[in-house]
Amino acid sequence: MTLERSNIAAMQGYAPGEQPQDLTTIKLNTNENPYPPSPEVAAALSAFDVASLRRYPNPIADEFRRIAADLHGLSLDNVIPTNGGDELLRLMLTTFVAEGEVVATTKPTYSLYPVLAAIQGAKLSEIDLDEQWRLPSDLIQQLHEIKAKAFILVNPHAPTGSLVSSATIAEIAENFDGVLVVDEAYIDFVDPDLEHNCVPLLQRFDNLLILRTMSKGYSLAGLRFGYGLAAKKLAAPMLFKTRDSYNTDAISQRLAAAALASQSYAKSTWNKVRESREKMFAELTSMGLTCLASQSNFLLCTIPESIGAPRAYAALKEKGVLVRYFDQDRLRDKLRISIGTEEENSRLIRALADLCRSES
Amino acid sequence: MTLERSNIAAMQGYAPGEQPQDLTTIKLNTNENPYPPSPEVAAALSAFDVASLRRYPNPIADEFRRIAADLHGLSLDNVIPTNGGDELLRLMLTTFVAEGEVVATTKPTYSLYPVLAAIQGAKLSEIDLDEQWRLPSDLIQQLHEIKAKAFILVNPHAPTGSLVSSATIAEIAENFDGVLVVDEAYIDFVDPDLEHNCVPLLQRFDNLLILRTMSKGYSLAGLRFGYGLAAKKLAAPMLFKTRDSYNTDAISQRLAAAALASQSYAKSTWNKVRESREKMFAELTSMGLTCLASQSNFLLCTIPESIGAPRAYAALKEKGVLVRYFDQDRLRDKLRISIGTEEENSRLIRALADLCRSES
Repeated sequence: MTLERSNIAAMQGYAPGEQPQDLTTIKLNTNENPYPPSPEVAAALSAFDVASLRRYPNPIADEFRRIAADLHGLSLDNVIPTNGGDELLRLMLTTFVAEGEVVATTKPTYSLYPVLAAIQGAKLSEIDLDEQWRLPSDLIQQLHEIKAKAFILVNPHAPTGSLVSSATIAEIAENFDGVLVVDEAYIDFVDPDLEHNCVPLLQRFDNLLILRTMSKGYSLAGLRFGYGLAAKKLAAPMLFKTRDSYNTDAISQRLAAAALASQSYAKSTWNKVRESREKMFAELTSMGLTCLASQSNFLLCTIPESIGAPRAYAALKEKGVLVRYFDQDRLRDKLRISIGTEEENSRLIRALADLCRSES
Repeated sequence: MTLERSNIAAMQGYAPGEQPQDLTTIKLNTNENPYPPSPEVAAALSAFDVASLRRYPNPIADEFRRIAADLHGLSLDNVIPTNGGDELLRLMLTTFVAEGEVVATTKPTYSLYPVLAAIQGAKLSEIDLDEQWRLPSDLIQQLHEIKAKAFILVNPHAPTGSLVSSATIAEIAENFDGVLVVDEAYIDFVDPDLEHNCVPLLQRFDNLLILRTMSKGYSLAGLRFGYGLAAKKLAAPMLFKTRDSYNTDAISQRLAAAALASQSYAKSTWNKVRESREKMFAELTSMGLTCLASQSNFLLCTIPESIGAPRAYAALKEKGVLVRYFDQDRLRDKLRISIGTEEENSRLIRALADLCRSES
């Protein structure tokens, strides 16, 4: 006999990407920022008063929310601070999707979404992307037909790196009567020339929830800090009811605030990542490999059948370079490669070139 | 129209105790440890490598779990690291109590439990303590009759500070077929002469979940770190399924590990709190106030009708001393007073004495 709820007993947990202890391994498998956090984060940590930890933190990260609200031209009531972006996804399900109700995602997508849906006992409905990895033209009709209470869209998309325009996001928000969650974990790596920005849509749509994280763009994956942006009415139950009463800690609040305030430093890392991404794209393409154009900090690369993606993954790992392989439909011939430093990327390229050469 | 689930729309959020910005206020309202964290915590913070934050943390706090397992004579599989003890309570409900099922607590108890039950859509059943604030003699029968899936018992009890023996805990665990959660948030303040220890019961009962927190005994309320102790089978779904994939951050893991390893420092603060508690108990009693004997870091004190607890609360606040008043059955004539430093306690005693004198 088990004491678990039946949906929990039946499910599998999330499998995080490998985190090798070996410091010489090149980690291009979990989309971390290859550059360290802002010097202001280091200064904030040095200045932190340890004695203050004996007291409870600000329950709702007011300092961080103030900085985020100013950055995005919103007010405090629009900002939901969370223990990593993952917590916002959980809060959204807890707050808006009851057991047995439908949450929709695309297929493929970020592999955590199905796990969170299973925990909540929600029905997961996966909507296939089209041949070019775009949203299907009848998306809104599909969402209606499956009676989705929420639709989670990662944008830029993982693991392809493609970007859905804000006009399309607006169209979905307008025609969908559930909660539209736009997971912008990778938004900071979008080419600024595109002038892509969904935040102004929050003035128009009170069913839109935008997820941001400090993990990627601000080099703070280890800190676990993310936030949601939403109309006041949508944000309120997550801020004041379903959030754990003290969900973010005093040090994380301080460091996340310092990082978010360091916009010019953060932007310098995004620029470097974008430049490296375009360079890596050109190099992979010139090796004869097919890559999808990406607006994120990773590239999805097709591995020739003669080598095979699982074998390429293993061979790269053997050479000390970790990338990500997904044993899923449409992804079994591909590897997802995070953008690292120039030196890390060169090592990846050399290792892949060796592999291609030895097979030709 | 609201997008919230009906149970969320109907509920009220948790109201945390006041956290005044004013540093001269004496905070005896949220049961924080009046002493700073161990010097080892400060050293761990100073030594922390900020650059490492760009990478994801260990998903499951292995270093902390190793120290906790050694301390309690258990193995890694018995330790569930959480983002504060509150997260463990939520994980327990998510994992074991489905919507519409019953979770039992005592009445009165820690005011967060009903909020978490409401979020989960569980039915809350509050079992009255007897006249002496003890568990009712027919507790086990009551748990059966209400078909409780889980029973949450805070021990030492809040807000009275009374302690249920490990023999009674064993009897409940043995005769209850749901999950017995013993919230030991205040366990470190129990008189060591009592040799109270429920951890060995984990060898006998696989439905027992013990909650520990670093907030009180280790002076780390601001850090948000707690942990659960349970048989491997009970712990596994919380460790590997329902926990957010990276629920504790890299800095918190390191500092919590350093604090837990500093047993002799922590014990020195517990001793001081216990000595102050007995002294404050004697002083309040000698002023003619009725106090319950407490095994925790607070005292529940009855305020004479001529003054009234709400008025006493307000008068103390006016004098810069914050205590906790609960507008609940059986508590409306009482104040819960956290044990502070000797100086803080003296200020509280003087302020209360002034108040009593002005009324007599």
